[in-house]
Amino acid sequence: MDHENAFKQWKRQCFSKVDFSKKGNIDDEIYPVVCLINDSSNYFTTSSCSGRIILIDGLSECSRVQKQNCSWLFVTHQKCKVADVVLGLQKASGNAVFKFEPFVLHVQCKDIESAKLLHSVAVNSGFRNSGMSIGKRGKIIMAVRSTHCLEVPLSHKGEILVNENYIHFLVQTANQKMAENVTRIKRFYDGLQAVLQADGSSSMATCKDKTTKIVQNQHQRKTQDSVIEDSQIPANKFSDSEDYLETSLILFS
Amino acid sequence: MDHENAFKQWKRQCFSKVDFSKKGNIDDEIYPVVCLINDSSNYFTTSSCSGRIILIDGLSECSRVQKQNCSWLFVTHQKCKVADVVLGLQKASGNAVFKFEPFVLHVQCKDIESAKLLHSVAVNSGFRNSGMSIGKRGKIIMAVRSTHCLEVPLSHKGEILVNENYIHFLVQTANQKMAENVTRIKRFYDGLQAVLQADGSSSMATCKDKTTKIVQNQHQRKTQDSVIEDSQIPANKFSDSEDYLETSLILFS
Repeated sequence: MDHENAFKQWKRQCFSKVDFSKKGNIDDEIYPVVCLINDSSNYFTTSSCSGRIILIDGLSECSRVQKQNCSWLFVTHQKCKVADVVLGLQKASGNAVFKFEPFVLHVQCKDIESAKLLHSVAVNSGFRNSGMSIGKRGKIIMAVRSTHCLEVPLSHKGEILVNENYIHFLVQTANQKMAENVTRIKRFYDGLQAVLQADGSSSMATCKDKTTKIVQNQHQRKTQDSVIEDSQIPANKFSDSEDYLETSLILFS
Repeated sequence: MDHENAFKQWKRQCFSKVDFSKKGNIDDEIYPVVCLINDSSNYFTTSSCSGRIILIDGLSECSRVQKQNCSWLFVTHQKCKVADVVLGLQKASGNAVFKFEPFVLHVQCKDIESAKLLHSVAVNSGFRNSGMSIGKRGKIIMAVRSTHCLEVPLSHKGEILVNENYIHFLVQTANQKMAENVTRIKRFYDGLQAVLQADGSSSMATCKDKTTKIVQNQHQRKTQDSVIEDSQIPANKFSDSEDYLETSLILFS
């Protein structure tokens, strides 16, 4: 099978899969970006996260990077409040760590030229740690990544090491990073839209108005964000190629 | 000019350039890795940092990621001490931030297959944010990167927000990450050595014993690490292709 047909088959297979992430759907904040990419014949997304602020409780006395042995005390994909962090911290029994993690996106690309184009838009939008990988079967994945982060230990064996004044400043700092993150996503969307329309590989005419869906999801989000997550890190997958949203005007206004 | 000759010319040009980084030479901790890569006909390094713990003083009330408007209060490429951080923090007049940044390496690769090989070794060693970029003239750069970090605000407008007990725990955490960083560099070196020898592109016979040079550099390092750096972020470049060291036995024992 030639590479172009192989790519089309990979895309069809990806869209037919269930979203196995903990969340089960795409983060609203990046729905237009994901939509725009998947509408192009040269790309499809394989995982995404709009960016998040999290408080995780890890095992004490473990020097290795630990993703498995931790529980989630708090998570939000928007700005956070001091009260939520304080509440989460009170439940910590180990080494709690507060983190800001920016937008991340993995996109499978039809060919190297498409990957280079996407990479260029990502870097110009501020996602300077973006880069591609090429698998054994010729699968080309472009990862959109940023260095923009926070990682702050807050407790040791359940003992909180900082006062509320510090948490207040930390939350303010994290929210500033989240705001910058949104600005970069918007810049990325605009850059992508410009190159895809110039490229002719995007068919924006198929995007439908799903304002109601966004509002519903945001309502669900407000409930979900304060739920304690288990230790699996969500990897959002695009599960339904028929769901399209009106473009950035709603989410980025 | 065909691509292979173009690559050889790029490599020659890179080795003839002056090291413009603030430090002016390769970090000792990764000299064997850099040596191994540059000894291969398929690669050469363009920038590197073994990993560092830094305390920087940034301007207040600036929400954007700021690399330009900050001064360096403290930097080390090895483990740090509480006293050094406390001393640095006392000199802060803005928003001081404590950071651990892991090993980072940029390597220009002869072709995509070489880049894929290097990428595979990097990811298997724990450098999971590694990825490649391909420039307009066909330059292929593989960036070896990790998510393993700390970024911790410690002061606001010169006012220190944490106590010495917190700094003690923070330093302990950072030193654990630095130890893990060294482990990953060792794993990367071993993996690289195995594939390059199997590949036949490495000529290890040319590596010479430079133990004296390492000891001298480490002595200079102890003096340099407590010096206040200016705002330029060092980007170490390999300046002298004739300097080779005995392999990892010395530095990683």
